[in-house]
Amino acid sequence: MDITHVKVFAPATIANVGAGFDVLGIALDSPGDIVIASRSDKKGLRFALGDSRYAVPADSSNVAAYVAQRMLDELDPPFGVSLILHKLLPIGSGLGSSGASCAAAAFAVNALLEQPLDRRELIRFALEGEKLATGAAHADNVAPALLGGVCLIRSYQPLDIIKLPVKNTLFWVVAHPHIILRTEDARSVLPKSVSLAAVIRQTGNLGALITGLILGDQELIGRAIQDEIAEPVRAALIPGFRAVKLAALAAGALAFSISGSGPSVFAVVATQEIAERVAAAMKQGFADHARVGCETYISGINDEGAKFQEEAR
Amino acid sequence: MDITHVKVFAPATIANVGAGFDVLGIALDSPGDIVIASRSDKKGLRFALGDSRYAVPADSSNVAAYVAQRMLDELDPPFGVSLILHKLLPIGSGLGSSGASCAAAAFAVNALLEQPLDRRELIRFALEGEKLATGAAHADNVAPALLGGVCLIRSYQPLDIIKLPVKNTLFWVVAHPHIILRTEDARSVLPKSVSLAAVIRQTGNLGALITGLILGDQELIGRAIQDEIAEPVRAALIPGFRAVKLAALAAGALAFSISGSGPSVFAVVATQEIAERVAAAMKQGFADHARVGCETYISGINDEGAKFQEEAR
Repeated sequence: MDITHVKVFAPATIANVGAGFDVLGIALDSPGDIVIASRSDKKGLRFALGDSRYAVPADSSNVAAYVAQRMLDELDPPFGVSLILHKLLPIGSGLGSSGASCAAAAFAVNALLEQPLDRRELIRFALEGEKLATGAAHADNVAPALLGGVCLIRSYQPLDIIKLPVKNTLFWVVAHPHIILRTEDARSVLPKSVSLAAVIRQTGNLGALITGLILGDQELIGRAIQDEIAEPVRAALIPGFRAVKLAALAAGALAFSISGSGPSVFAVVATQEIAERVAAAMKQGFADHARVGCETYISGINDEGAKFQEEAR
Repeated sequence: MDITHVKVFAPATIANVGAGFDVLGIALDSPGDIVIASRSDKKGLRFALGDSRYAVPADSSNVAAYVAQRMLDELDPPFGVSLILHKLLPIGSGLGSSGASCAAAAFAVNALLEQPLDRRELIRFALEGEKLATGAAHADNVAPALLGGVCLIRSYQPLDIIKLPVKNTLFWVVAHPHIILRTEDARSVLPKSVSLAAVIRQTGNLGALITGLILGDQELIGRAIQDEIAEPVRAALIPGFRAVKLAALAAGALAFSISGSGPSVFAVVATQEIAERVAAAMKQGFADHARVGCETYISGINDEGAKFQEEAR
């Protein structure tokens, strides 16, 4: 019997991950967005915003609604869909907030279909929502939000996304400071070109990071999370960045960088105990050096990605 | 009892490997250089050239002699060393010829020591020879020539070289056309900076190449061997490059690019049978389109690196 009602969770994601500018993304266990989708007799989409602490559109211009509408337009199922988005991820945070909404919507609508698509085929629908949200169809958030784990975007033309077979040995500590940083501003400071010497350092570190993730080599991952491209120019847009980085490293973090386009930052650490110490140091650092509060999250790598929390037939 | 006489082989190497400009190198089974080293009563180094089809220095300015001398200067063993280099690798070929001489010399002298150094510690001595030969201490030839396998240079400051745990599933076909291409000329055409879009493609491909090598995923390796940095500018320095590339791909190669700074080129293929077909196509391609002869070599990944062919106590 077909599924007629689902509740779906799609996770926050860390894009870039230091050395993987625009090519690497990691799914977190939490936080994330929730989408509830139900079949209805009347064709077409009805969208509503559920719980939301954030100012996202409550109409068809919401990315979740947009993705759902694109799927209904193309796949034309013999039923309508009611969609409710619980917007739990902070927007403009660098935690892949729009990507999580897009992934959850695509995953939820797909589950209602008589012949659901493969999870990978949902990426292109989610990407259209991402393009609406950010102006560019970046896949480094939607791919891990859908597929889970660590995703490498080898190529956009054609789209070629590799889910890496990683060993989940580390804790990822994310701090989201209460700072407004527009994605456009974070992108406008990026260099148009990179010196050959910096490219060599970036590729060396990216290769080492991927090797370390596959082998579960904590020390190697720690050494390899270095960014020659975005962090040097974006750090100045995040008040307190340098002090918080030093505090996290002093508290035992193996590495530290910016999550996506910021202002969230992340650290990788070896144990839960150190993770808690590093989270406290990051929170304190933002309070002392930027006079802003922040949320912190401690997570492993979420290998599952988007998932059902409820389903009814 | 100490070793008093050794015969050492160090292999040719493919640096860059498409997406790994200046950070990746692979050791081949053959060809390679041979160094014979013996203890002598009189301290200091005596160097001689053995078989050589190539015009390399026969005195202390030979890179093999230079590396050996640096080791004797620093480690000061209570004996002298006689060193003979059989220079079997073509120079200026893009096959890591000077790197193989440096690696063989370092490995041979080390074996004579009362307390030999770890293989990894020899890299810094071999790098000094590489610096003498090419003006820059690039490690992407000497590291795989010494350590074998596939080596990633994560960082030069500090030197951090990772030998990747690869699955040896492919055949590597190398063609060395009889073209003179000076390393200085090959380096002078390199861009000083790279567009951000090209960096993103290069890092995506490098990450995929490393993943493919570790997993032994032939298709992924084939898709990922693409070069945004050196091949676009160096291809024009290798007469017939484009025609030979198309011929190799048509004959079944999964990928094709320039070995090191050229003029040698390489293809990766799935089976010995296809390797022989691709090697013939490359040879024919250089004959037809550049009117030059070439040697071809078919090899797996040489996991051992520098090795003893004889030793006596």
